Amino acid sequence: MKLQNIKIVMVGTTHPGNIGAAARAMNNMCLSHLTLVDPQCPIGETAYARASGANAILDNRETCSGLAQAIADCNLAVATSARRRSLPWPELNPQELADKLISMDDSGRVALVFGREHSGLLNEEIQLCNQMVCIPTNPEFSSLNLASAIQVLCYEIFNRQYDAPLPVKEPDAHDLPAPSSEVEGYFEHLQQILLSSGYLDPDQPGMIMQRLRRLYLRSELTRNEINILRGMLTAIEKQKH
Amino acid sequence: MKLQNIKIVMVGTTHPGNIGAAARAMNNMCLSHLTLVDPQCPIGETAYARASGANAILDNRETCSGLAQAIADCNLAVATSARRRSLPWPELNPQELADKLISMDDSGRVALVFGREHSGLLNEEIQLCNQMVCIPTNPEFSSLNLASAIQVLCYEIFNRQYDAPLPVKEPDAHDLPAPSSEVEGYFEHLQQILLSSGYLDPDQPGMIMQRLRRLYLRSELTRNEINILRGMLTAIEKQKH
Repeated sequence: MKLQNIKIVMVGTTHPGNIGAAARAMNNMCLSHLTLVDPQCPIGETAYARASGANAILDNRETCSGLAQAIADCNLAVATSARRRSLPWPELNPQELADKLISMDDSGRVALVFGREHSGLLNEEIQLCNQMVCIPTNPEFSSLNLASAIQVLCYEIFNRQYDAPLPVKEPDAHDLPAPSSEVEGYFEHLQQILLSSGYLDPDQPGMIMQRLRRLYLRSELTRNEINILRGMLTAIEKQKH
Repeated sequence: MKLQNIKIVMVGTTHPGNIGAAARAMNNMCLSHLTLVDPQCPIGETAYARASGANAILDNRETCSGLAQAIADCNLAVATSARRRSLPWPELNPQELADKLISMDDSGRVALVFGREHSGLLNEEIQLCNQMVCIPTNPEFSSLNLASAIQVLCYEIFNRQYDAPLPVKEPDAHDLPAPSSEVEGYFEHLQQILLSSGYLDPDQPGMIMQRLRRLYLRSELTRNEINILRGMLTAIEKQKH
């Protein structure tokens, strides 16, 4: 895949220095697409000072409201996290992530999603993503600086590309992982059917839907597969009436 | 070799934030021995703030005058550099460095030497070292932040040690991939529902079922997931009658 198709998504960042340092780290490793989701600080002098010349990345940043919007056009969204979760999400280490990206098609779009300085990503944000990546750390002192975590992942990815320029065969677009917005459309459809069939408790759809999300996001559904799954749902709905 | 036998040596650092950030990066990766050679700034509030709790590393730092003193007790000194030198020094990449360190004897002492923020190491300082390590970067924007460079090398070294055998927690049997017989039971159930809903052509169920098999087999369904998927099918069936 292409490095320019990878976006670094920073969610709810509170310190402008971290945004500037992230831009520098990205530029060092040939990444250029920075997306801020609901930033909690101005992007001014402090950010530009820490960017140390990577101004174009800050100038061209995208700003979104909510993570879903930021990853809507992405075929793969990977959440970073230090904490283990109550519902564990499929997990890669940084090298496995780099290997996965290098094997992707050139048209694939990828988001690497980083959470807030003190509290990381919310469970519902992680559950928008296909997978998690965890940087191995000292278990007694596991919280990396936000920009340092970005540096480590950008380094792994650049380094892996740099190692091996590999030709990849061009698959049919319908056999590539679908963008997040289409996958979310399927989840809405599924939830609606499961509510109307009485399988989901309308007051507590959560746990079952979370497990279904984990299953289907892990599978990286293609467009063809989403068409089949939604076709099934539509056929079942029609039959009822 | 032992991680505690590796010292991070910072030469002529001018920004206390970089020293604090280096301490944090070291602590994240289980390194603890910090040596400052002729630091050009006070190690006070700014450094401790950026250390973010890695205070012990700052408290126990060693301060030396001149690089020779700092590396006097080391069996291996490795200089970091972004620039190519007029007299090329033997050069490793970060993974080669990590491999080299892991193969060293437990008693070996190692210094990783980092230069000044703007000018790096002097030629005569590099020439006190056994080897150089270069972090691969964007040739158009190659200068990493000092603490970021320390983060990347500490990460590679820790990660390489950590790769060695680790105890892994035993997952619940219901969260492991289910045996094939249970997955096949799900496929039969699914096919029957899709036939009765009219979604599958009874004469040619093949192509759609093959694609569904590929999707679910790729996902390596767990027992818990099969229970949810079959529960959904049963709820939908009941609703019809």
